Amino acid sequence: MKSKNPLFCDQVQPQVLGIHPYIPGKPVSELQRELGLQNITKLASNENPLGASPKVIEAIQAELVDIARYPDGSAYALKHTLAEFLGVQASQLVIGNGSNEVLELVARVFAGPEDEIIYSQYAFAVYPISAQVVGATGVEVPAKDWGHDLSAMLAAVTDKTKVIYLANPNNPTGTFFSKQAWQAFIEKVPQNIIVVLDEAYVEYAQSFLDADVFFNGVDYIDDYPNLLVSRTFSKAYGLASLRIGYMVGNPETIQYINQVREPFNVNHYAQVAAQYALADQDFVNEAVLVNQQGMRQVIEVLEELDIQYIPSIGNFVCIDLGEAALEYNQKLLKEGVIVRPVANYGMTNYLRISIGTQVENQYFIDALKKVYQP
Amino acid sequence: MKSKNPLFCDQVQPQVLGIHPYIPGKPVSELQRELGLQNITKLASNENPLGASPKVIEAIQAELVDIARYPDGSAYALKHTLAEFLGVQASQLVIGNGSNEVLELVARVFAGPEDEIIYSQYAFAVYPISAQVVGATGVEVPAKDWGHDLSAMLAAVTDKTKVIYLANPNNPTGTFFSKQAWQAFIEKVPQNIIVVLDEAYVEYAQSFLDADVFFNGVDYIDDYPNLLVSRTFSKAYGLASLRIGYMVGNPETIQYINQVREPFNVNHYAQVAAQYALADQDFVNEAVLVNQQGMRQVIEVLEELDIQYIPSIGNFVCIDLGEAALEYNQKLLKEGVIVRPVANYGMTNYLRISIGTQVENQYFIDALKKVYQP
Repeated sequence: MKSKNPLFCDQVQPQVLGIHPYIPGKPVSELQRELGLQNITKLASNENPLGASPKVIEAIQAELVDIARYPDGSAYALKHTLAEFLGVQASQLVIGNGSNEVLELVARVFAGPEDEIIYSQYAFAVYPISAQVVGATGVEVPAKDWGHDLSAMLAAVTDKTKVIYLANPNNPTGTFFSKQAWQAFIEKVPQNIIVVLDEAYVEYAQSFLDADVFFNGVDYIDDYPNLLVSRTFSKAYGLASLRIGYMVGNPETIQYINQVREPFNVNHYAQVAAQYALADQDFVNEAVLVNQQGMRQVIEVLEELDIQYIPSIGNFVCIDLGEAALEYNQKLLKEGVIVRPVANYGMTNYLRISIGTQVENQYFIDALKKVYQP
Repeated sequence: MKSKNPLFCDQVQPQVLGIHPYIPGKPVSELQRELGLQNITKLASNENPLGASPKVIEAIQAELVDIARYPDGSAYALKHTLAEFLGVQASQLVIGNGSNEVLELVARVFAGPEDEIIYSQYAFAVYPISAQVVGATGVEVPAKDWGHDLSAMLAAVTDKTKVIYLANPNNPTGTFFSKQAWQAFIEKVPQNIIVVLDEAYVEYAQSFLDADVFFNGVDYIDDYPNLLVSRTFSKAYGLASLRIGYMVGNPETIQYINQVREPFNVNHYAQVAAQYALADQDFVNEAVLVNQQGMRQVIEVLEELDIQYIPSIGNFVCIDLGEAALEYNQKLLKEGVIVRPVANYGMTNYLRISIGTQVENQYFIDALKKVYQP
């Protein structure tokens, strides 16, 4: 983008010119108007098809009387609930306007224009954007079997490396690295480099993996002061509308991140909702179970149709439709099913399908069977 | 803050070390516990004592069914409603997680470590913080009669100046500069410098001022492409809990700001609430009227007690309690009334009182009369 007219636009900071922002999809309401459809099934954003815990809804309603009051800028109550839930101290937590915010704040604290930030090919789009935001060089390490190649990522470390972003499971591919691979990696990363382990989909991962393969990043915080683990309430907890996520780490690192966040970065209803959502683990367990069943439901049909897919332990699956992927996306849209093209990740042959309820999955399956031509 | 221990903390970006974050007050619930009080009157955060429009509350309740869905990252519906309300194009708007976010994004787009950012003494704390966040030099221009000295601010411009922040009315002092003073200023500012006019309290200002003195910054956008006007839904619209504000400017500048904001920076309920709040101007008019009456109610008592104050056209007033201001703050707290000390603004002799409902103001007046010793 080159400045066309006013003088001051030549003064835009150089790193800003290098940002390629995430382009969100059109709202469902707009698509409905455009395509003249009554019913739309949205399986595009890895949202929780069950909504959120009824206790969350009740708690929000009870708090609407205080709509004109500022949120608690220190998120005191939520941090204490969350600290107890995770077995850490409140000083080890920073709460964000979605985990997106905390992921970006890490880059802003620890990296600048002379530095390098490492992430994997096909990893979450927010990592390269975070590097762009601070003008750092983004180092994309080629994936292995669509997942993180941890050895290659380690080999990519230079004396300019300041941050390494890892997603486990990875979005959009749904791949996972094991406890053993993780331990071998984190032991070898120089301790002056911040490692961000993004566990947005950890609840789903745990349900799919054996106990000797699965690991929980929070268990490694004490041993690795350079480790930061991020989580979100947008997925298994069903609070995507409200924007709330968090990061756990050693208190000193967390203090720097708190230093750069805005004082009222997390709205009041997000804080209340997260507290009540944490207290209702039955809801999370049900969401995870419905996802396991839904994943089986979708995979069975993919195998029946002989459509290749990337095995996933998230609440989504990428399917290979070859060069016709974007055409299939249009055809599915006309059938009222919104899924996510992932061409912006360099995965031009793939569409990402979020797992919905049994009924929503069936809509997708029916639409796919109708339009699919092997 | 000096790094105590882990290696990587020496790699914190230098500008981060210079940030003095805004320290929010304790939550009411905590104060209640600490002081063992049943009833607390909070007149500390310039919130709307009437809450928000009942239509906003209904709209939020109707949308709770979609709690698990991501917000519209482009705020399509709200931007179109707001554009019509303001008489501008949707491309001239950026929506923020509170106006705080857009105020900070301006600094991040247009200023860096070699640059200067100008603001007034006693102006809103977010302006110096925004300079600190990007490592720019903050240039604080001495106030005149507690308000902006626009001539002195103009004289402070150098070839390093990138951004000038103005608040009209100003928080925490409640001062205002007239249409005439503004026109003389904006005409003379070099057009390569971004001028941010923060109109968080504009609805209150308009109710207090004559038509030849009051002005609306949005009317100047077309003539001055370097002008950005910020507004908030946290004050007269009563949506502080939800975090939503916006900025209006020329499309090119706005595009750069949109470029650095996070894709889902504004939660869904904030977007819905702002749309319904805009549609209920009767509510805003009532809030403004209650504020005018409340201001008279408080001022009468201040004059009766011979307490000096800074004349204000906002929804708050700063009162001069001399060297005992902080002691009075403690005494008022013990009476269950929370007001705001403004020592962090260098106003050690003052307390800022937000105007509440008639009943809330009376609680404050009773408490003040009880503890005040001339």
